[in-house]
Amino acid sequence: MSSSDIFIGETIGTAVLILLGGGVVAAVTLKRSKALNAGWLAITFGWGFAVLTGAYIAGGVSGAHLNPAVTVGLAIKGGEGGTQWSDVPLYFASQLLGAMIGALLVWVSYYGHFQAHLTDPEVIAETGGQEGLVDQSAAPAAGPVLGIFSTGPEIRNAVQNLATEIIATTVLVLAILTQGLTEGLAVSGTGALMTALVVVGLGLSLGGPTGYAINPVRDLGPRIVHALLPLPNKGGSDWGYAWIPVVGPLAGGAIAGGLYELAFA
Amino acid sequence: MSSSDIFIGETIGTAVLILLGGGVVAAVTLKRSKALNAGWLAITFGWGFAVLTGAYIAGGVSGAHLNPAVTVGLAIKGGEGGTQWSDVPLYFASQLLGAMIGALLVWVSYYGHFQAHLTDPEVIAETGGQEGLVDQSAAPAAGPVLGIFSTGPEIRNAVQNLATEIIATTVLVLAILTQGLTEGLAVSGTGALMTALVVVGLGLSLGGPTGYAINPVRDLGPRIVHALLPLPNKGGSDWGYAWIPVVGPLAGGAIAGGLYELAFA
Amino acid sequence: MSSSDIFIGETIGTAVLILLGGGVVAAVTLKRSKALNAGWLAITFGWGFAVLTGAYIAGGVSGAHLNPAVTVGLAIKGGEGGTQWSDVPLYFASQLLGAMIGALLVWVSYYGHFQAHLTDPEVIAETGGQEGLVDQSAAPAAGPVLGIFSTGPEIRNAVQNLATEIIATTVLVLAILTQGLTEGLAVSGTGALMTALVVVGLGLSLGGPTGYAINPVRDLGPRIVHALLPLPNKGGSDWGYAWIPVVGPLAGGAIAGGLYELAFA
Amino acid sequence: MSSSDIFIGETIGTAVLILLGGGVVAAVTLKRSKALNAGWLAITFGWGFAVLTGAYIAGGVSGAHLNPAVTVGLAIKGGEGGTQWSDVPLYFASQLLGAMIGALLVWVSYYGHFQAHLTDPEVIAETGGQEGLVDQSAAPAAGPVLGIFSTGPEIRNAVQNLATEIIATTVLVLAILTQGLTEGLAVSGTGALMTALVVVGLGLSLGGPTGYAINPVRDLGPRIVHALLPLPNKGGSDWGYAWIPVVGPLAGGAIAGGLYELAFA
Repeated sequence: MSSSDIFIGETIGTAVLILLGGGVVAAVTLKRSKALNAGWLAITFGWGFAVLTGAYIAGGVSGAHLNPAVTVGLAIKGGEGGTQWSDVPLYFASQLLGAMIGALLVWVSYYGHFQAHLTDPEVIAETGGQEGLVDQSAAPAAGPVLGIFSTGPEIRNAVQNLATEIIATTVLVLAILTQGLTEGLAVSGTGALMTALVVVGLGLSLGGPTGYAINPVRDLGPRIVHALLPLPNKGGSDWGYAWIPVVGPLAGGAIAGGLYELAFA
Repeated sequence: MSSSDIFIGETIGTAVLILLGGGVVAAVTLKRSKALNAGWLAITFGWGFAVLTGAYIAGGVSGAHLNPAVTVGLAIKGGEGGTQWSDVPLYFASQLLGAMIGALLVWVSYYGHFQAHLTDPEVIAETGGQEGLVDQSAAPAAGPVLGIFSTGPEIRNAVQNLATEIIATTVLVLAILTQGLTEGLAVSGTGALMTALVVVGLGLSLGGPTGYAINPVRDLGPRIVHALLPLPNKGGSDWGYAWIPVVGPLAGGAIAGGLYELAFA
Repeated sequence: MSSSDIFIGETIGTAVLILLGGGVVAAVTLKRSKALNAGWLAITFGWGFAVLTGAYIAGGVSGAHLNPAVTVGLAIKGGEGGTQWSDVPLYFASQLLGAMIGALLVWVSYYGHFQAHLTDPEVIAETGGQEGLVDQSAAPAAGPVLGIFSTGPEIRNAVQNLATEIIATTVLVLAILTQGLTEGLAVSGTGALMTALVVVGLGLSLGGPTGYAINPVRDLGPRIVHALLPLPNKGGSDWGYAWIPVVGPLAGGAIAGGLYELAFA
Repeated sequence: MSSSDIFIGETIGTAVLILLGGGVVAAVTLKRSKALNAGWLAITFGWGFAVLTGAYIAGGVSGAHLNPAVTVGLAIKGGEGGTQWSDVPLYFASQLLGAMIGALLVWVSYYGHFQAHLTDPEVIAETGGQEGLVDQSAAPAAGPVLGIFSTGPEIRNAVQNLATEIIATTVLVLAILTQGLTEGLAVSGTGALMTALVVVGLGLSLGGPTGYAINPVRDLGPRIVHALLPLPNKGGSDWGYAWIPVVGPLAGGAIAGGLYELAFA
């Protein structure tokens, strides 16, 4: 796989993943959206089909990792179907760039709705209208639209939140690493579908506590974009939590890689 | 591919697409339907499986574009698996004809429910009973059942609405163009399924602002039928918006074709 | 295909189809069920996966028609992959027997819930406690649990209801007949999945008016069982409507067969 | 298949199955979860994709039974694609161990939410705060979070509950045994997907009365863990019901095996 294939596939694929993934949260939460309050099932299927679409587009080019945790798992696996360690930095950089582009495109696609939502008196009342605050330290950690960009915990506890992210990501990456063991899966082109439905399942089952980042760039890239975008009354980007959805998924990917080598190889 | 194959496949396939796609909106919105208020997830899965059914029926005959944006993308791609420019007019015409037939069949299938809905005093009160108005200019742009036929924006802004349609269609067509890159996908016959689930994903993620036409004839064909049908109190067909779901998707298809040639070919 | 293969496959497959299809309606409507009020999306996915399961079990044995409308379509098609007219009576009889067994198994599976529901004072009050009526002609056409067995229209109009059933069944059978045109679909074993998702789509899109029988035995077999079962306060079996979900789907199957021969063969 | 393959595949695969399956019930029921009240459709898809993920991971190693009822069915079938009776005890033990590990991981993943839920005054008021009771016999059979671990009937009746579990499991195992009859299904790697969707269907259709164990270890393993875990105010583990979701599914698996040998082999 050439460097340009990795760059193109991972950047475009991850951009599509985040465009559709962030998009479904925007669709379900922003005022005046047709999908307002469509619920958790809509969010989990939306993220799953975001994976499907991104993986489908990038699959034949870069292998469609779209996720540093997957890249780490495949690098630990190595060999046929695995990833070379020397390619890892390029995978990471392309994925982060793609995630940022995707988050920007969510903003473009829902521009009018972001404006309507963030200038709505009800929303401002609920969140305290942070921009006008004299004491910025009183601003809440998570602004009213941060959930469209990044994940956040319902019960804030670093050890607990980290554990949930590690467990969920280990399952995800293990399910991807074991694809090669199922006869004919790659040949039939349904690997992307399987992975997408695993992601739906992970969201339904393990998304309750932290919102299932299970992918470092899926969280970090859009969080950077949230911090930079000129959104009115956007509130904080919750940087205090930002390390957990990076470290947890990377650890999960590494554990899955090790488990694969130990038990399945 | 012969002209008659293109005509038969695209006309019948697009008719099925619009019958099931328009049908799900009728099912969810018309009074006394068993599916009344079944919600956004029902609508997005309904449109996705409408694509599946139409693509499945037409796939072996015309390649099942069912969408001028797809035809444009495949014409720009050209070569093996692409479309010849000389076939494009026939594709367009067949798709438009099919879309009109499909919209007619929605009306036939839900005839009693259209009558019950449009003569319901509650619906008339809400929408002003346009037919009896002296001043027709006071009639709302979008009648009470137009949403079963065509799309419309929640926040009306041409640039914004166009941007959303372009972005969503670019993703759709790119996902279809890259099918050929995934080994074995065509052979396993799951291409139609993949595309259908991408459409579910696009609806969930990017349908919030404009209702995701992502297909010029999906919007224009049924809008023409809405304008012609003898529906009581049907209200306006919102022709002022009609160009956006035509131009946006065509632009998206062209961008996807260009992006494919640039980055993936 | 031997007669015993047809008999075994169609009887068992159709029994499974109706067990799971009737089961989901029982699950969503009977008091004290865990799935009470799970909604229209649950019903349509439940019926679709009922088709999947039945088709999956019978596919390798009898070809899994599970539906006289499909059998008629395949007989009109004839040739390779089609059905011989001489086998049609055995298909029909096995399907009807299977449908009756399936409806019986729904009753066994939900026995306690049927009893709880039908002896609930609220349900009795709503439906008039028909068993105690002196004037049986006052009994409603459709008893309070008939919907678990058979379909019924929301707006009762023979021509309209027939039209809806014909249109929906034509799409279903056409989608099945054209399977042979998609390269490799049979070989990959995903034909049952595709058909199942088409059925989900038909339910979402065209189920609103009549509840989409789209299969003569799916309606008639359980209706006979409803008439025979010793259910307390069960009310009428609505025999006046019974011919529509038999004639409509058979006509749809024949139209699909004709259309296939005309346009696709 | 080596003993170590069976042990690794079944233990890890069943752990993943129960982690995601128990996880979705935790997600939908525990206070402060993002998925709170996401509904029955979320639960049934969650369990289905739990099967998909576990089967996907273990498929290439142990054949991914993940369920003693499946093992019994495959042992009765025997021959090519079947299971040797001498391997059955190892399958059972690995599955039970895996189920217990999976239930533990649900607890770890939702630790904070278990604590929040079980110490919530509202929950304690509803369930009587059993831990403080002098008369332990007054404690309800099923504690407030037992449903995350094990199944329980809505209408408690041993014969009825057993019948429902037997019928549902017979369909499940029959659908798995007949996979080999569909040409190419194994080769395309979609067997796990088909089985997963059958499980979604069984949940939607036959889950209403007992919550569809359809797998002895899915119920027994987590019930043991529930009895052992130091959860505050956890209430009883309902051991009086525990034999039904063990005996029923085993009987269903045996019936399916016999039916397969009789009718399909």
